[in-house]
Amino acid sequence: MDAVKVIEIKKSVFADNDIDAGNLRNELKDRGVYLLNLMSSPGSGKTTTLIKTINLLKDKIRIAVMEADIDSNVDAIKIKEETGVDSIQLHTGGMCHLDAEMTRQGLSNLPDGGVDLVILENVGNLVCPAEFDTGAVRNAMILSVPEGHDKPLKYPLMFSVCDVVVINKMDVLPYFDFDLDKCTEYVHIRNPRAQLIPICARTGEGVEAFAEWLLKEVKEWKNN
Amino acid sequence: MDAVKVIEIKKSVFADNDIDAGNLRNELKDRGVYLLNLMSSPGSGKTTTLIKTINLLKDKIRIAVMEADIDSNVDAIKIKEETGVDSIQLHTGGMCHLDAEMTRQGLSNLPDGGVDLVILENVGNLVCPAEFDTGAVRNAMILSVPEGHDKPLKYPLMFSVCDVVVINKMDVLPYFDFDLDKCTEYVHIRNPRAQLIPICARTGEGVEAFAEWLLKEVKEWKNN
Repeated sequence: MDAVKVIEIKKSVFADNDIDAGNLRNELKDRGVYLLNLMSSPGSGKTTTLIKTINLLKDKIRIAVMEADIDSNVDAIKIKEETGVDSIQLHTGGMCHLDAEMTRQGLSNLPDGGVDLVILENVGNLVCPAEFDTGAVRNAMILSVPEGHDKPLKYPLMFSVCDVVVINKMDVLPYFDFDLDKCTEYVHIRNPRAQLIPICARTGEGVEAFAEWLLKEVKEWKNN
Repeated sequence: MDAVKVIEIKKSVFADNDIDAGNLRNELKDRGVYLLNLMSSPGSGKTTTLIKTINLLKDKIRIAVMEADIDSNVDAIKIKEETGVDSIQLHTGGMCHLDAEMTRQGLSNLPDGGVDLVILENVGNLVCPAEFDTGAVRNAMILSVPEGHDKPLKYPLMFSVCDVVVINKMDVLPYFDFDLDKCTEYVHIRNPRAQLIPICARTGEGVEAFAEWLLKEVKEWKNN
């Protein structure tokens, strides 16, 4: 039996996702809710990073999580069990991304009562999620060391739309041919303002920097 | 200056990709060409695996490679430099997958003269490429140890359509929480006939088993 709410997301009917995403962002602004869209390849460590980040922030702000996956509920259950915050699973029915209307369907299924921060863990995919504005205030992504430092060359749009690139699995750097300087250079070709945050989600090392960035973002969103 | 041919793939006009893929497979059968569609997440080691595999097979059969990427030509250049076989780069123009017509565009740009085996390295993505029959005789995929053994639960279609699942980066098994028995169990939920081949592409360990499978496949395709 699943311990979390599971939402079967329906395909969007809106023709212009950009307009819809702008509307959703305005709605969230009015409600004082900050939405973060977190993207990455499969297996880069999104869920583990979220658990460590949420545990650093949950006593300071009210947080909820939406886990998007084609199938399975393991991530939403894990988030709920290991952080205690509200977590729901969005099933995309085979779809490779979420757009603004699909994100709205998820938001409307969050438990009642205010939240300051909703984190959307998008489908593990470096291509399609980058093409659809979810209505989030910011996009962030995780690139893990085993994936290689050349990924910004191969998946340009993903790195262009993200303001923060978390570099995860820094603990296995000695076993892989990953050059952090080259990675930084390639990321900045795509987005010169992007901030890189090296972490090891497994041990928690470096996660504080990501949590601090996020907390500052949420406070600015609510106060400006 | 690029050392390889780069093809900008155009969007397909065919409504029914399944019919088109069947036609392409028949054409390839008539020409005695075996097409393998190789898929994986970004950074799982497709190109390195191909280089090691091709170097084991290139004196036995004639091989060509089509590298599909949204951007960059680094993979096609690397294949050509490190194996000597004909290699072309397909740019998908932002598209997240290849279908049969896009594959046909690539095949028509391969150098003249017969080949026995064409390997298509699909876009790094565990979602969309699984939805489109490329016209290949077989689908194979690479799952690397750092990605985790739970991927067949999260990306069901990809594991359903693949006959071979190469488990790469076995050398870093001690540093990751990856359970090969569980992975095998999860893969077989999706496709009970799927064959798992553990390898380390970096050192070449285990690649011989994949090369042997592929050689047997090519011979059977040409002779039956």
